[in-house]
Amino acid sequence: MRLDAGCEILFEASAPTPLILMLRPRSGLGQWIFREEYLLEPSVPMVEYTDSYGNLCQRLVTPQGSFRVRAIASAETADTIDVQPGAPFVPVQNVPDGVLQFLLPSRYCPCDRLGDLATKIVADCAPGYDQVEAIRDWIQTHIDYQYGTSDASTSAFETAQDRVGVCRDFAHLGIALCRSLNIPARMVVGYLYQLDPMDLHAWFEAFVGDSQSQDPQGRWFTFDATQPQPRGNRITIAYGRDAADVALATQFGPLQLNEMRVWVEPSP
Amino acid sequence: MRLDAGCEILFEASAPTPLILMLRPRSGLGQWIFREEYLLEPSVPMVEYTDSYGNLCQRLVTPQGSFRVRAIASAETADTIDVQPGAPFVPVQNVPDGVLQFLLPSRYCPCDRLGDLATKIVADCAPGYDQVEAIRDWIQTHIDYQYGTSDASTSAFETAQDRVGVCRDFAHLGIALCRSLNIPARMVVGYLYQLDPMDLHAWFEAFVGDSQSQDPQGRWFTFDATQPQPRGNRITIAYGRDAADVALATQFGPLQLNEMRVWVEPSP
Amino acid sequence: MRLDAGCEILFEASAPTPLILMLRPRSGLGQWIFREEYLLEPSVPMVEYTDSYGNLCQRLVTPQGSFRVRAIASAETADTIDVQPGAPFVPVQNVPDGVLQFLLPSRYCPCDRLGDLATKIVADCAPGYDQVEAIRDWIQTHIDYQYGTSDASTSAFETAQDRVGVCRDFAHLGIALCRSLNIPARMVVGYLYQLDPMDLHAWFEAFVGDSQSQDPQGRWFTFDATQPQPRGNRITIAYGRDAADVALATQFGPLQLNEMRVWVEPSP
Amino acid sequence: MRLDAGCEILFEASAPTPLILMLRPRSGLGQWIFREEYLLEPSVPMVEYTDSYGNLCQRLVTPQGSFRVRAIASAETADTIDVQPGAPFVPVQNVPDGVLQFLLPSRYCPCDRLGDLATKIVADCAPGYDQVEAIRDWIQTHIDYQYGTSDASTSAFETAQDRVGVCRDFAHLGIALCRSLNIPARMVVGYLYQLDPMDLHAWFEAFVGDSQSQDPQGRWFTFDATQPQPRGNRITIAYGRDAADVALATQFGPLQLNEMRVWVEPSP
Repeated sequence: MRLDAGCEILFEASAPTPLILMLRPRSGLGQWIFREEYLLEPSVPMVEYTDSYGNLCQRLVTPQGSFRVRAIASAETADTIDVQPGAPFVPVQNVPDGVLQFLLPSRYCPCDRLGDLATKIVADCAPGYDQVEAIRDWIQTHIDYQYGTSDASTSAFETAQDRVGVCRDFAHLGIALCRSLNIPARMVVGYLYQLDPMDLHAWFEAFVGDSQSQDPQGRWFTFDATQPQPRGNRITIAYGRDAADVALATQFGPLQLNEMRVWVEPSP
Repeated sequence: MRLDAGCEILFEASAPTPLILMLRPRSGLGQWIFREEYLLEPSVPMVEYTDSYGNLCQRLVTPQGSFRVRAIASAETADTIDVQPGAPFVPVQNVPDGVLQFLLPSRYCPCDRLGDLATKIVADCAPGYDQVEAIRDWIQTHIDYQYGTSDASTSAFETAQDRVGVCRDFAHLGIALCRSLNIPARMVVGYLYQLDPMDLHAWFEAFVGDSQSQDPQGRWFTFDATQPQPRGNRITIAYGRDAADVALATQFGPLQLNEMRVWVEPSP
Repeated sequence: MRLDAGCEILFEASAPTPLILMLRPRSGLGQWIFREEYLLEPSVPMVEYTDSYGNLCQRLVTPQGSFRVRAIASAETADTIDVQPGAPFVPVQNVPDGVLQFLLPSRYCPCDRLGDLATKIVADCAPGYDQVEAIRDWIQTHIDYQYGTSDASTSAFETAQDRVGVCRDFAHLGIALCRSLNIPARMVVGYLYQLDPMDLHAWFEAFVGDSQSQDPQGRWFTFDATQPQPRGNRITIAYGRDAADVALATQFGPLQLNEMRVWVEPSP
Repeated sequence: MRLDAGCEILFEASAPTPLILMLRPRSGLGQWIFREEYLLEPSVPMVEYTDSYGNLCQRLVTPQGSFRVRAIASAETADTIDVQPGAPFVPVQNVPDGVLQFLLPSRYCPCDRLGDLATKIVADCAPGYDQVEAIRDWIQTHIDYQYGTSDASTSAFETAQDRVGVCRDFAHLGIALCRSLNIPARMVVGYLYQLDPMDLHAWFEAFVGDSQSQDPQGRWFTFDATQPQPRGNRITIAYGRDAADVALATQFGPLQLNEMRVWVEPSP
């Protein structure tokens, strides 16, 4: 469906602060951005670059004082996500070069330390999609969604121990468990229609075979351990190894995020 | 200043036709896109990719019949372009790796055949910016701007002989002459505020030293041989070696462009 | 088989001259470089970069006087090239993003001017591999291989008129004719075992469907219009749109190539 | 000086195992590879790709049983590394786009947890090179170099607590401390002449201003916390965020490394 999504952030800076934002979704295979808007108050010079994952990043130095960012995107999205029980595991030797990096451990996804848990969770599953779905289901069942229980330094290892977290932690744990089984997995941040309470959201994708297209290379499938049912109408803003790569705002100085408002509505 | 620019194109296809469009400017060092819109009528699936020059390209298959594309961008642009008489030539060994390709001959810029003319034009100039400016001035003085005198197969070699052409030919000639002097040069297409008559526009950039920043690597400077005076307020849509790389619409089948409207106005 | 290939070039420079060499083949899907050597006499600083096609390029400034370059590669190569009569045409909408550039006209392959000839040559062929083979065969039959009849400014358009040229011209013509039919085609330079007389060689690749793997995306197939039979045991040094991209030596000043020796032998 | 470096690894696989090797150094600004050799016993198909950091990676599937890899490189290297006390800090807003990723936390360099320690170490230093040198010196003084005290899951946070580790841990700690001060830092693996005992080695680079070239962008400087004095004659094999990116062998299955021999000698 056609969605109008946006977010508005109010910062307060005690001194001018370098800031990198990732708030501009790109048009791609799964989504088409047909309208967007990106406003700063006060207006300051901003330049955009593409990071090594293909995400658009906006660089600027905030002025001292109040600083408001407002980014809006209208997108054509898919109403559903693909669900393919039985889709096969892609042997590592067939994983495309550019996808191999999503098998490696990363800051919040120390897959090298979660192999035992993963093996236990997927004990009875056919390799591939079914393993990922078992992981997703296990997380949804065993991890409590609770605000304020994790912070910017919480890794999947801690989430597996503490059994509590928010969407970002759910995604990290899903990614780390997949990677420990040699299934490439990556972090996604973006908008989800009818998320409740509304906020920016994080989920994950896993790379498995596509049994329908018989493409031996496989492709990315969407998984969201915070939701009981597969749901479409997502707008992806950025991909990365984990939250370190896809922070919507990375600041290098004394910047306070005072207010943030997010909305996703049907496009009129 | 803040500009609202856009174009609307009406195609007619006797059969479904693959089409690549380049109608989405990117935010970068010189311009900030704060609003945009991209509409198709009827709506068809469209995907976007980045070419090897960093341009955004939109791929689609037009339906049979009428097909309308409307792309709008609002941008913060610079009111003037940098003019630096005396800025030095960058010796080839100091040209950055990624810029070297803009020294090579290309479809419409056969610089290997224009060395004699270039040498004559820049006879009395200091190497670098002054040479490019002499080339720009020579083109403006010696080539007649006239619609209908060139077509999609006209190269700079022919323009140098026939001494007539449109903005695209002016740019190709400027590029080819620069390259024949080992000055990297590239094609730019985009919008120019107060262009008369209004249309999509083409100009060129040359890579020379920056005497102000004392950066030994040099940088790109804007030149427009169709204009008597340096003018800012440009919105770049795409860069490339020549028009082959930056066609706003590249079609692969029986597609007719029936109407095209372009506008550039101060943003309210 | 395992091949030892190499070339030795003797330059003479009346002044220090920037030079870009492409003499280092890369290991890839079709070939494995298990040994190599790259020597300069006298020794001067040389740096290497990767161009936008993935080729390794060596940059240096030659000293004044004599300058010798010796580049040797030992490679595991395929004894045969794939021949797939009937392999299907890949519709432009299915061509991978990165391959689209090989549909565009380029300096020596003005495909925009060769459509009529191409249409005539492939009149009775099924779209795809058979068209490319008909083009290859037509070139081999109708173009005379003759040294000294073309030079660094000869394009495929002229070769089609003059009906004479060398391997580079044969490749350009093949590429231009393919592109005029919307078949992506690219230039290849490298070594060919038992080429007679031995020299560096040029041929081309066309992108068509792979009927054996049923991969809908297609892949690159090798064609060599200078040879009566398909022959393997090639070592690719570089890929590009045409000879402008893959010159083994691009010089920017008064450099004379005085001698060149090339060899390709079975590895002991 | 000219060095012959190499390593030979003997694996034993109980089943065919996908393996990614990084054992082929690239020619670049700081080093020129004039000879190399890469052998597998038994010979199996191997393909090479470039990762997102520009490193050459070799992919293969080992056969069952014994498997030997032998990679040799002869390189021209610099006898010394640049030492520039006083070279200034590069403010984040001036860090080149491609370097920004080296400010982020990564698997083994959780810089988000080491800010306090870093602040203490650099208390009296001018921002920039002197801070990095203070960090390097602190590590060399306070961390014991001891085999068998850390493993593949040890992060810089643990090394800071345990005060013991090997070259890889020393590098991780240096990187994490730099990043916590907003100084970009990256991992380097390669060869070091006269390392004792000889082995493959790891060190780090930090991105600070270059006070000699007055280049405002800064550049990478080499630091090695395992050595009391700055030492040149290094051959870099790979760069990355941390050891997860630059493992010389990443295996995906039951593969045992039974023997490894490394040598670095003056080239005859």
